Amino acid sequence: MAKPQDLRPIRVGTPHPQGPAAIITRRASDKIRAGHLWVYRTDVEQLLPAPGTTSVDPGALVTILDTRGIPLGSALYSSASQITLRVVSPLAALTREAYLAETRTRIQAALSLRNQLSPVTADNNAHRLIFAEADNLPGIVADRYNDLIVLQLLTQSTAKPDLRALIGEVLAAELHPSTILERPDPRVREIEQIAPAPTEPIFSAGEAKEATIFTINGLHFAFDVTSGQKTGAFLDQRLNYAAAARYAHGRALDVCTYQGGFALHLAQTCDRVTGVDTSRAALEVADANLALNPHLKARTDWMEADAFDLLREYESTGERFDTIVLDPPAFAKSQRALEGALRGYKELNLRALKMLNPGGTLVTCSCSHHVPLEEFTAVVASAAADSHRRVQLLETRGAAPDHPAVLTLPETSYLKCLVARVD
Amino acid sequence: MAKPQDLRPIRVGTPHPQGPAAIITRRASDKIRAGHLWVYRTDVEQLLPAPGTTSVDPGALVTILDTRGIPLGSALYSSASQITLRVVSPLAALTREAYLAETRTRIQAALSLRNQLSPVTADNNAHRLIFAEADNLPGIVADRYNDLIVLQLLTQSTAKPDLRALIGEVLAAELHPSTILERPDPRVREIEQIAPAPTEPIFSAGEAKEATIFTINGLHFAFDVTSGQKTGAFLDQRLNYAAAARYAHGRALDVCTYQGGFALHLAQTCDRVTGVDTSRAALEVADANLALNPHLKARTDWMEADAFDLLREYESTGERFDTIVLDPPAFAKSQRALEGALRGYKELNLRALKMLNPGGTLVTCSCSHHVPLEEFTAVVASAAADSHRRVQLLETRGAAPDHPAVLTLPETSYLKCLVARVD
Repeated sequence: MAKPQDLRPIRVGTPHPQGPAAIITRRASDKIRAGHLWVYRTDVEQLLPAPGTTSVDPGALVTILDTRGIPLGSALYSSASQITLRVVSPLAALTREAYLAETRTRIQAALSLRNQLSPVTADNNAHRLIFAEADNLPGIVADRYNDLIVLQLLTQSTAKPDLRALIGEVLAAELHPSTILERPDPRVREIEQIAPAPTEPIFSAGEAKEATIFTINGLHFAFDVTSGQKTGAFLDQRLNYAAAARYAHGRALDVCTYQGGFALHLAQTCDRVTGVDTSRAALEVADANLALNPHLKARTDWMEADAFDLLREYESTGERFDTIVLDPPAFAKSQRALEGALRGYKELNLRALKMLNPGGTLVTCSCSHHVPLEEFTAVVASAAADSHRRVQLLETRGAAPDHPAVLTLPETSYLKCLVARVD
Repeated sequence: MAKPQDLRPIRVGTPHPQGPAAIITRRASDKIRAGHLWVYRTDVEQLLPAPGTTSVDPGALVTILDTRGIPLGSALYSSASQITLRVVSPLAALTREAYLAETRTRIQAALSLRNQLSPVTADNNAHRLIFAEADNLPGIVADRYNDLIVLQLLTQSTAKPDLRALIGEVLAAELHPSTILERPDPRVREIEQIAPAPTEPIFSAGEAKEATIFTINGLHFAFDVTSGQKTGAFLDQRLNYAAAARYAHGRALDVCTYQGGFALHLAQTCDRVTGVDTSRAALEVADANLALNPHLKARTDWMEADAFDLLREYESTGERFDTIVLDPPAFAKSQRALEGALRGYKELNLRALKMLNPGGTLVTCSCSHHVPLEEFTAVVASAAADSHRRVQLLETRGAAPDHPAVLTLPETSYLKCLVARVD
């Protein structure tokens, strides 16, 4: 369980006539003017309560002011997060009522974009409906898995009952799901100091469902909201799964397969696929997923192993593959962990490159926010040089477009996926 | 016409027993060991002739030596280019005979990759067959336009008759084209001090053809090797054309349309498309291309105008579009021109963002080798901030995979294409 963060106290100034406000540093003001959407706690100089009050409520809407008192917009305030302010509007003094009305409009815009980008078909009925800042809806994430919608409310402001109810209402009216569930992230709830979420579903047509089968790229996957693992499936990899299958051939290894996403896609075009993960629970779901796609059964198996240990062992025993996918969990959870993460990426990629047959395909991913694309590409290039293999870079890919990024907030472009051919 | 380059003379040392060689700086050796494939003239310390000779022939194969005399591989030597050495093999003392044999194998590997990546179909019969360093064939570029193959031989080594004949033989045997033509680039020939190319075709089955119709994404385009413009069509944009059509809608503007590549694709999904270019000759080809796709005729028109002037005028007259494509020629032809190029990108993107309707699509490209992706993205982000528009980044795209890059030579990743939605 995450520990509450060490929080620098913020000085409380005199009340602001237009309601709660926050004075931020010049550096942070410049960033907001350049389209950034977050203010870190260390950049908040003063909190100004509303007239007649002495503090700012957790989750309140506050006006952001530069050091000269010029308003830069309104933001969601968190009393507990290192990201203290999340911009939601260029207008000052946004009321909760106006925020809720805006939220309704923005959810509708987000849904209409998904309708255009990844319409529901027989072959694809799962995608991200709402992606926080990227849909101008900070603190709100919603995914569709066939008839189930799973919501995450990630800030003090967005976890409030009025917003929860509003989102449920809009999603139910627009998408007619069987059930809308909230899946609280205990780590985020603890860091954000948010009270436990209500346990009943936000919406259900008839009896509430907690599990379903969804389909991406024509393959079926199980989704169970009650399962211990944090994420049901990596919908952001949806188009990368399909791309990997286009380039894959022969004997394939899917390293950090989790619930079998890449492995099942590879099995469509490979002779033999082994999906590797350290988590037995994940592999049990992967095997259940395989059972949902019986035509792939004869070509797919699972192995419980640590990625580093296994690749080291395979190198010593001279194993060879035609296709290797590397999709490790985020090694760099923080800026501080970056160096270790880069070493980890280097080792995995170097070992993988060495054990690919000539003409082999490497699909190598990083989902660390803290490792930018050019740095990740440089690490893989360095592994290529050390492996003495010639590597053609065929595609540089990111998250599927139903997981957009904010152009002015590079932190929201997190997923990198390189497709390469190895001589 | 380009001027011959100012060339620093290279000191000639004592003959090397294994044939011509070049001693390079420590810095350049480190780069070669890290997978880089070029040695600049300023990094060549000494040229060592073959025994019994006093100079190294233009286009010779030379062994690269570090300052301690340790061989790093063999390279194509140019007496005239700033890129003096292009690595072709990790082996020392590669003979011309061995180089030709390797070239044959590598061409076959390149063709087999294209067969896998972009097989010829009724809807797609044009792609890059050989892409220089990225196919381990420095100085050689070949494109297929339906039944025509167009070859570019870009270095002193690869323009020699033995290689020209070999490439023609392999491509004719493998692909059965009607004609294989060389299309010499006069600027490169002058810089490289290569003698004029023979004018007869390298191969023809029956009467030699100089023009054909090719098809990409189901649309037809004219190709004429004798036309004045340097490149026939931008095959590297093939999949970006298709992606743009997926996101385009309403009233569309294609800025720097050249021969109508994006415009014709947009016309499939837009109500109205205007393709803009400063070159009347290019627009005449664009119009001929439109005539080849008569179903798009009613929705497409062309305008001869300078991109900057036109966008400035449209801004002042309050024109609005739902889709804008920006695909300007490489602004930054050199590292020195970078600052001006970034200003150019900023201005074009800022004006385009301002004149997009809410929900509009921006497709913005850069093909400057000298502007890396993160720098280009930052410029577009800065334009987004200045435009006060919220911009969702939906896709970050590059060249089609038949234009691969060398992972360890970032210079070969040149094409950037961002697809964004503007609120």
